[in-house]
Amino acid sequence: MIYLTRRERFNAAHRLFKKEWSDEKNFEVFGKCSNPNWHGHNYQLFVTIKGEINPETGFVVNLKVLSKIVREKVIEKIDHKNLNLDVDFMKGKITSAENIAIAIWQEIEEDINKLSCELHCVKVVETENNSIEYYG
Amino acid sequence: MIYLTRRERFNAAHRLFKKEWSDEKNFEVFGKCSNPNWHGHNYQLFVTIKGEINPETGFVVNLKVLSKIVREKVIEKIDHKNLNLDVDFMKGKITSAENIAIAIWQEIEEDINKLSCELHCVKVVETENNSIEYYG
Amino acid sequence: MIYLTRRERFNAAHRLFKKEWSDEKNFEVFGKCSNPNWHGHNYQLFVTIKGEINPETGFVVNLKVLSKIVREKVIEKIDHKNLNLDVDFMKGKITSAENIAIAIWQEIEEDINKLSCELHCVKVVETENNSIEYYG
Amino acid sequence: MIYLTRRERFNAAHRLFKKEWSDEKNFEVFGKCSNPNWHGHNYQLFVTIKGEINPETGFVVNLKVLSKIVREKVIEKIDHKNLNLDVDFMKGKITSAENIAIAIWQEIEEDINKLSCELHCVKVVETENNSIEYYG
Amino acid sequence: MIYLTRRERFNAAHRLFKKEWSDEKNFEVFGKCSNPNWHGHNYQLFVTIKGEINPETGFVVNLKVLSKIVREKVIEKIDHKNLNLDVDFMKGKITSAENIAIAIWQEIEEDINKLSCELHCVKVVETENNSIEYYG
Amino acid sequence: MIYLTRRERFNAAHRLFKKEWSDEKNFEVFGKCSNPNWHGHNYQLFVTIKGEINPETGFVVNLKVLSKIVREKVIEKIDHKNLNLDVDFMKGKITSAENIAIAIWQEIEEDINKLSCELHCVKVVETENNSIEYYG
Repeated sequence: MIYLTRRERFNAAHRLFKKEWSDEKNFEVFGKCSNPNWHGHNYQLFVTIKGEINPETGFVVNLKVLSKIVREKVIEKIDHKNLNLDVDFMKGKITSAENIAIAIWQEIEEDINKLSCELHCVKVVETENNSIEYYG
Repeated sequence: MIYLTRRERFNAAHRLFKKEWSDEKNFEVFGKCSNPNWHGHNYQLFVTIKGEINPETGFVVNLKVLSKIVREKVIEKIDHKNLNLDVDFMKGKITSAENIAIAIWQEIEEDINKLSCELHCVKVVETENNSIEYYG
Repeated sequence: MIYLTRRERFNAAHRLFKKEWSDEKNFEVFGKCSNPNWHGHNYQLFVTIKGEINPETGFVVNLKVLSKIVREKVIEKIDHKNLNLDVDFMKGKITSAENIAIAIWQEIEEDINKLSCELHCVKVVETENNSIEYYG
Repeated sequence: MIYLTRRERFNAAHRLFKKEWSDEKNFEVFGKCSNPNWHGHNYQLFVTIKGEINPETGFVVNLKVLSKIVREKVIEKIDHKNLNLDVDFMKGKITSAENIAIAIWQEIEEDINKLSCELHCVKVVETENNSIEYYG
Repeated sequence: MIYLTRRERFNAAHRLFKKEWSDEKNFEVFGKCSNPNWHGHNYQLFVTIKGEINPETGFVVNLKVLSKIVREKVIEKIDHKNLNLDVDFMKGKITSAENIAIAIWQEIEEDINKLSCELHCVKVVETENNSIEYYG
Repeated sequence: MIYLTRRERFNAAHRLFKKEWSDEKNFEVFGKCSNPNWHGHNYQLFVTIKGEINPETGFVVNLKVLSKIVREKVIEKIDHKNLNLDVDFMKGKITSAENIAIAIWQEIEEDINKLSCELHCVKVVETENNSIEYYG
C-alpha cells in the first residue's frame, strides 16, 4: 500500500454566515469572516489516494488521470468563484474549510474509487496558519 | 543605508472589471478574474523602508512602529474585505495588484517618511506565481 | 470526524545538556546544541484537533477559541524566552523537540478536550529539516 | 511513542519508460516524463521514525545517527546521479516516485531498526504538486 | 513605473562539463555536477517586466500575454528536457544557471519589448540555496 | 554583469538591549526581544555577488569557493552560538538584524572581492515577517 498526494490550487471568495442570524450574531460567531461583501483566499487542495503499485507502470495511479478528475470535478467549478453563490456542491452550506473538504471528498470519491486506488484524504489549506483534513 | 522589509498579510475578495464594458468584453480582457460574484486571495504585502541605523538602538526604525502604521493604514481597512466595495482607497479603481500596490504606497508614504527612514518599495504578492513591486 | 490544524510560532533560546555530565560528554552527545551560551530557533507549532462538525457553524471548533488556548497556555510562556530557564512546564527537562512537544500536549490537552473536540497531534518544527509529532 | 522526521535532499535525473515498449507507447503512458534524454528534479526525502524517548537524552534517536544512515545508504548513492543508470537499488525498476520511496525504505529499514526506534514513513516529494508516502 | 513578476517552473536534466577537458579536470572544477549520466533540478524561473500602468485595464501587461510568451519561447522547449542535449538555445553552452538565465533573457526579450513594457530581470532558482539574476 | 545568490543558515540566541539602560527602558524600546535570558532564531543569510561570467566555466564564481568563504568567515562563528556573547564580530554591538547584516558584510567583503566578482548584497532573514538587506 502506498499513498500519493496531488496538490491543486483555487482562488475563491466566500463569507461565513447563517442567514437566519442577525449581522450582530454572525459577527459574534464568525468575526470578520462574516463580512457581508465577502473576502477570499488562495486555497490549496491536497488529494491523497492509496493503493498498490501497478508493476507495468510503477504508478499507483497515473497522475494525469487523478489530476483530470480533481480539475473537472472541483477546480473548474470552484476556482475564481464565490463559494457561497457559484458552486453547486456548496449550495446551502456554510462555506467553512471543514464543509469545503467534505464536499470535495463527495465530489471526487466515486470517480477516484473507479480507478485502481482508494481516496484516502482531502486536505484544504485556507491560510498558512489554518488547514483541514478529512478521511471520509 | 540599510533596507528593512516587513511582511503583513490580508485575505480579500475582488473582481477585475470595467463597469463601462459588457460582461463579454470584461471576460475577454480579464478572463475568470472578472467573475461577477467575486473571487479572492491571500495577499502578502512586503513593505521595505531604507535609512541609516540609529546607533542607540541598532534599528533603522522600530518594527513595532512600522508594523503599527501598516496595520492601521492598510491591513485594518483591507483584511477580510472586498477590495472593490469596502476599501476607501481603492474606490473607483480597477483592483489589479498594480493598483493595489500604488494605493498602499500612497496610504503609508507620509507616515513612514515622518520616521527616521524613507519608504522604498511596496510589494504585493497575489499568488505564488504573480507579484508586483512599486518604488514610488 | 474531521481534523483541524492551527499553526502558531515562537522564537526561543535553548541548550541541550545534562547538568550531571561534563562539558565534553555533553558535546559528545549533543554536539553544538550543547553550547553553554545557548542558541535558538524559530519554532513552528502545529496543533491538530479532531471532532464532528457543528452543523450550526460548520466548524469543529471555533479557531479563535482554539488559538486563544494555545496562545495563553503555550505561546505567551514560551515565545521570546529561554526554554531551559524561563518556561515553567520545561523545568528540569532536556529541551529537545521531543520533550517540548510532549510538554505542550500536557499544557493544552485538558482545555482542548473541554471543547467539542479532542486533541489529536502536537507537531513541533525546529528547523526546515527536523520535526517531531506527538499523538498522546 | 513519538515521531521524528528528518528531511534530506537530492538532485537527480531520471526517465519514466519501459524498455519493452515503443517510444510512442512510452509517451502515451508516461507523457513528457519519458523524454529519452532524461529530465530531473530537486527531490525532498522525509524519513520518519517512531519510538520512545530516551530519558537520558530527551531524544528518540540522535539526529546525527539517523542523518548519517540516510546519507550513507541513500543520499550519497542518489544525489547528482541518474536514477535509471547510476543507482544500484533502482536497477531494473521504473523510477517513479512510488518505486523510489519503496527502494529507499528497503535501503534504510535494517539500519534504522537496529537503533532504539522503528522506521515509520518514507516520503518522497518530487515537485511542489506531487508526493508519495510509504509506510512499509 | 511598476514591476510585475511572473513565476514559471521547469524540470530538467543537465550536466556541467567542458568536452575539451578530461573527466578528472571536469570533476575538479564542477564536482558532482559533472556526473556523465546527468542529474537534474526543479528550476523556478521568475521573469520581471517593468512599465507604466494602462489606465484602461490597471495592468502593466496582461499576465496571460506575458505567460504565453514565456511558455512558448522557454518552458515548452526546456521543461522535462535535457538542457545540454535537447534545448536549441543552450547548444554549445555550459548549462550553468548563469548561462541559462542569459539565454532565457535572449529568447524572450524581443517579444516582451514589443508589449507595452520592458524586460527587467530574469531570475533562475536552481535549488533552495542557489539562484541567479540577470538584468540584461 | 550577473548576480549570484547563495543561501546559508544559522541558528542562534540573542538579546536586544543596551547595558546602560534599565530593564524597564530596555523593555520599552526592545519589547520581548530584551528578555534577559535570551531568545533565538533560525536565521537565513543570503549573500549576493555580482560579476562577469567566466567563459571557461559558465560561472561568475564557483559556488564551492563562495560557500567556503561564507561558512568559514561567518557560519562557523555564528551557528549554534549566542550572538551577544560568543561572536567576535558582534562584540559590543546591539545584535539587531541590521547590525548582523553589516557585520557579516565586513567579515566577507575582502575575501569575496579577491575573487573575480564583487559583493553586492547581504540579506538577513530573522523571521518569515522580518528581513534586512545591506548593499555596502
